[in-house]
Amino acid sequence: MSFLSDTTAPAHPSLIEAIARANTDFAPSYGADAISARVKAQLCEIFETDLEVLFVISGTASNALALSILADPDGAIFCHDEAHIHRDERGAPEFFTQGAKLIPLHGEHGRIDPKSLEAALAQWPRDFLHAAPPQVLSLSQLNEAGCAYSRDQLDALIAPAKAAGLKIHMDGARFANALVTNGLSPAELTWKVGVDSLCMGATKNGALGAEAIILFPSVKDRFARLQARQKRAGHMAPKMRFIAAQYEAWLKDDLWLDLARHANAKALDLKAIFESQGEIGFAHPVEGNELFVHMPAPIAERLRQAGIGFYGWPDGSARFVTSWCTSDADIERVNAALKP
Amino acid sequence: MSFLSDTTAPAHPSLIEAIARANTDFAPSYGADAISARVKAQLCEIFETDLEVLFVISGTASNALALSILADPDGAIFCHDEAHIHRDERGAPEFFTQGAKLIPLHGEHGRIDPKSLEAALAQWPRDFLHAAPPQVLSLSQLNEAGCAYSRDQLDALIAPAKAAGLKIHMDGARFANALVTNGLSPAELTWKVGVDSLCMGATKNGALGAEAIILFPSVKDRFARLQARQKRAGHMAPKMRFIAAQYEAWLKDDLWLDLARHANAKALDLKAIFESQGEIGFAHPVEGNELFVHMPAPIAERLRQAGIGFYGWPDGSARFVTSWCTSDADIERVNAALKP
Amino acid sequence: MSFLSDTTAPAHPSLIEAIARANTDFAPSYGADAISARVKAQLCEIFETDLEVLFVISGTASNALALSILADPDGAIFCHDEAHIHRDERGAPEFFTQGAKLIPLHGEHGRIDPKSLEAALAQWPRDFLHAAPPQVLSLSQLNEAGCAYSRDQLDALIAPAKAAGLKIHMDGARFANALVTNGLSPAELTWKVGVDSLCMGATKNGALGAEAIILFPSVKDRFARLQARQKRAGHMAPKMRFIAAQYEAWLKDDLWLDLARHANAKALDLKAIFESQGEIGFAHPVEGNELFVHMPAPIAERLRQAGIGFYGWPDGSARFVTSWCTSDADIERVNAALKP
Amino acid sequence: MSFLSDTTAPAHPSLIEAIARANTDFAPSYGADAISARVKAQLCEIFETDLEVLFVISGTASNALALSILADPDGAIFCHDEAHIHRDERGAPEFFTQGAKLIPLHGEHGRIDPKSLEAALAQWPRDFLHAAPPQVLSLSQLNEAGCAYSRDQLDALIAPAKAAGLKIHMDGARFANALVTNGLSPAELTWKVGVDSLCMGATKNGALGAEAIILFPSVKDRFARLQARQKRAGHMAPKMRFIAAQYEAWLKDDLWLDLARHANAKALDLKAIFESQGEIGFAHPVEGNELFVHMPAPIAERLRQAGIGFYGWPDGSARFVTSWCTSDADIERVNAALKP
Repeated sequence: MSFLSDTTAPAHPSLIEAIARANTDFAPSYGADAISARVKAQLCEIFETDLEVLFVISGTASNALALSILADPDGAIFCHDEAHIHRDERGAPEFFTQGAKLIPLHGEHGRIDPKSLEAALAQWPRDFLHAAPPQVLSLSQLNEAGCAYSRDQLDALIAPAKAAGLKIHMDGARFANALVTNGLSPAELTWKVGVDSLCMGATKNGALGAEAIILFPSVKDRFARLQARQKRAGHMAPKMRFIAAQYEAWLKDDLWLDLARHANAKALDLKAIFESQGEIGFAHPVEGNELFVHMPAPIAERLRQAGIGFYGWPDGSARFVTSWCTSDADIERVNAALKP
Repeated sequence: MSFLSDTTAPAHPSLIEAIARANTDFAPSYGADAISARVKAQLCEIFETDLEVLFVISGTASNALALSILADPDGAIFCHDEAHIHRDERGAPEFFTQGAKLIPLHGEHGRIDPKSLEAALAQWPRDFLHAAPPQVLSLSQLNEAGCAYSRDQLDALIAPAKAAGLKIHMDGARFANALVTNGLSPAELTWKVGVDSLCMGATKNGALGAEAIILFPSVKDRFARLQARQKRAGHMAPKMRFIAAQYEAWLKDDLWLDLARHANAKALDLKAIFESQGEIGFAHPVEGNELFVHMPAPIAERLRQAGIGFYGWPDGSARFVTSWCTSDADIERVNAALKP
Repeated sequence: MSFLSDTTAPAHPSLIEAIARANTDFAPSYGADAISARVKAQLCEIFETDLEVLFVISGTASNALALSILADPDGAIFCHDEAHIHRDERGAPEFFTQGAKLIPLHGEHGRIDPKSLEAALAQWPRDFLHAAPPQVLSLSQLNEAGCAYSRDQLDALIAPAKAAGLKIHMDGARFANALVTNGLSPAELTWKVGVDSLCMGATKNGALGAEAIILFPSVKDRFARLQARQKRAGHMAPKMRFIAAQYEAWLKDDLWLDLARHANAKALDLKAIFESQGEIGFAHPVEGNELFVHMPAPIAERLRQAGIGFYGWPDGSARFVTSWCTSDADIERVNAALKP
Repeated sequence: MSFLSDTTAPAHPSLIEAIARANTDFAPSYGADAISARVKAQLCEIFETDLEVLFVISGTASNALALSILADPDGAIFCHDEAHIHRDERGAPEFFTQGAKLIPLHGEHGRIDPKSLEAALAQWPRDFLHAAPPQVLSLSQLNEAGCAYSRDQLDALIAPAKAAGLKIHMDGARFANALVTNGLSPAELTWKVGVDSLCMGATKNGALGAEAIILFPSVKDRFARLQARQKRAGHMAPKMRFIAAQYEAWLKDDLWLDLARHANAKALDLKAIFESQGEIGFAHPVEGNELFVHMPAPIAERLRQAGIGFYGWPDGSARFVTSWCTSDADIERVNAALKP
């Protein structure tokens, strides 16, 4: 059993059934199919606004494409120093934007500290010909420390960024997990607080490979550019219906929220077990489906011996990721392995 | 019923079954899964050589990624003026290569005329600092006129290109169809005749979305670069097993060849019907699963009225594409509609 | 003595004197100096309109920067197959535009044939998501065959291009020579006939290294973008005054036209000598300061023996370029060498 | 009189005389001239090694071109957070490298702290497919705080960087000033301590516009690529002799060192005056030709009233730059203005 990553988990069976159902007859290609249209309607309802949406197959593609219509090649993007777009995408944002700079900001628990943003806004002038003008603030929700920004925390960052003319990008690879934690509506956690574009991930939460790039009304006029870039980047899947079908099933009857709720609950179960062990500490609060723990080497070794998979993290902690399919038995196995 | 494009066709059911079978337990992500390894072994056997392979979800991504490791940003790529990479990919090769030039060559029926290649090789010097050096010859098999290069025709182009130091890229979005037409082995039509990299498409021939970039031994040492670019371009699917699973089922027991053989046969059936009609001419030989026909406007109108889908082509012809799922009934409906 | 290229010629002494005069005291850098401002005023007067101008040090930089604000990364630029931007700039336009396609058109004597333009406009749709939309028509004046477009010839190309929404770029590395030949005003040969941006070269006509990118009113609103790109490309010279000073002296009292007139006159002198020789033919009309001649090998050898420099051209002809400093003695030496 | 920047200073007269001398007869273009060859020989002697050199007209071009052959598009470049390449070149390094990431390091007085480098080397893995591999360490000498790295300080950074496989780039816009301060030979401060490529600036130290990109033996094999990129970027000046001529005169008889020595001496004179004033503090040590001072607003105002030019710096200090032509009278005028 594996706590390595939610990308190693299987897909929820209902999504595969949806793919099978979508496999009838001919259908327009490249996103002009009926299922894609239905998903757009679903999303408009869920987000309570008129929006545009495109589907791709990876979070890296999703983030990089969204950023490429928010930042110019000679612009700058502010993000947390540990952001996935900065550390784990092999320079995809730089490739898709054709050269924009990612400026790393700082803050505890993966959250950008408003003071770090303030300093960066002061240091990077917007109208100085010799400097790359800041154009985007990118926020990860959940962030790379597994923490969720609250609405107030978002406000504290988005307000000054907007005042400085920046667009707001949200890397929502684990957006559903953050939503469940916050107990807010999708609208409240995105466009109502100033997010311009959300990269809403499903792959880590039950899909085979489906990510949605959502443009809220503030940037809807850039949709044609986004489509052109999607095509140019080879991300306009010919048989798009099979990606859209995943999304439709995933959104239906709040399955996406149920799956995230399950993953988050299992993370808390795991947390309780770790806490009860006594020698295990936490690098960050557990606010989603990820735990970053400090444990004595012998304990880590014991877990590995028991076949329990997790990653050693660059900061010296151990990362455990739960998912929609983590079972009570999985948790219990950790519990058993912890006992000497 | 639709002859619009093989990308509007559904997927073969056995591929969806394979996806469902692949959906068990955790699996390493990003292509490190067991199915991906098995497909590589299958391909090595089918192509009778040691090769490297990566999977992506569109032909555009496949071509552009392959070209990006064959051409430098300041290099030139020779291709037919009507090549998909030149006309129909929104500049994806330019984007992925970061600026390489596509130099259009000419020739009838979508085939590059050796004289056009010869002229281009003369005009584009390889060691002149002020000019973009030619580095790649890209051949489409089937080509954009639905024609298949024979081995001799490939020889006549590849030999002088190789002599000039060019690498050979093959856009094989419909490679299976060309293979069936030529009656040669996969090896004979690729690396044995000098092809360095094959973009082998499955999407148009029964897959949901699966394309393989194959590096033959001559360029295998560029595999690490290809992987880095795949990641950077957002084309390294987190749950790669679901793409690999399609490929495994598609290759198994020669399904891929059976599907192509079927599509080609239906194209010939359709050709026979058009020929028997008397007023319909052909813009190009029918050598795969595509027909480009000249028909009087009233006939075209009659077909459309009968709900038969096809595209008007830029050259004034009408394109009909058959696929793995074109039925005798589909052909018969055309036949019926043709009768006044 | 050399007819190799006008780039091998020295600079006119008055430009060096101007540089020396500019070398007093401190001056604002990066183009904010007083001389730059004066040259802009000169150019507004010469072109009879309000324009923007930037200086760079090479024609390649000039063309590529201008094109980068006229074409998008996923757009297409129409130019003659032999255009300098296509053949002799190592992909600079592709680099600066970050991937735009150059689509080669055809026509005799380096002039784009209106039929070739018409065909390209038909083949490259403007609103098809899968194709690179044509956005620029680039014309060389003088062109690569040493020929000058007349106003009517410009009209025949620019009118349909404009109707299709294209912007017009003019590569004027030898603009002065074309102007002299046409006997028209600078305005008549540029913005009045629809040119949006002119790359006006001085380097080949007496400068040390000075090229002006001129934006006419139709694209003046892109000036800030051009400045940003100039900086980003390292072409915003810190001590810009020394480039501007060259331009100021070059424009003063019509020196630029006098120099071009001289070069053109010497080309005609050389032409007369070649004609009188009897065995020498011309590949193209002589309409500026370049001659492309067909001569028997022994004659070419005799010229070379006499120390007369010229280039063998890809089309088999021999190119002779006169310049502002070609003397009667230079011409006479050719005459002498031609005699057996 | 101006302490705004050394780029606002005039050129040394001997360089203009050299240009005038170079202006005779025809000369091969694009760097194939005799003067360029002579300067290369001069530099080989000065740096006591076999090297390659190219000339450009701005420091931005020089840095960006050098970096483009040291870093891949998907690589990372470590530099100080305040480095010119990061803050003041409008993303030129990102443009020329086609997407490399600049990773800001930290340290007092513009010097990278070895601990900051150590942390970055730990955080940015070299062989992780998902991360941009670090490939270059860029050091500014003088740095952006006007400070010079000593040989020991260079050692402390270059040794671990080299051990990690990084190439070393030195931004030497004010290299001569750093050399004079250190009292070391050019070789000792560059390749002998591990520098692979030096961007050696003359523009700020007496030239009209001349920067040399020097490749030391460790990267000499990349020279052809550098030339191709120089051409592609429009930085291969057609009449290169006029840039080379500046360099030749500048290097001759150690003029370049004399000019830097003068500028540094005037900076110390200015420092002494500021110190004697009593209320003026220094943000950084004065180790070249730049002073960053903290002064009460009334004093700053008094200086401005006296027509003394300087820039307010982002950190709140006031920057004064001396140059080769700063006179005793200039210094005295500051002295006079300081007195109430």
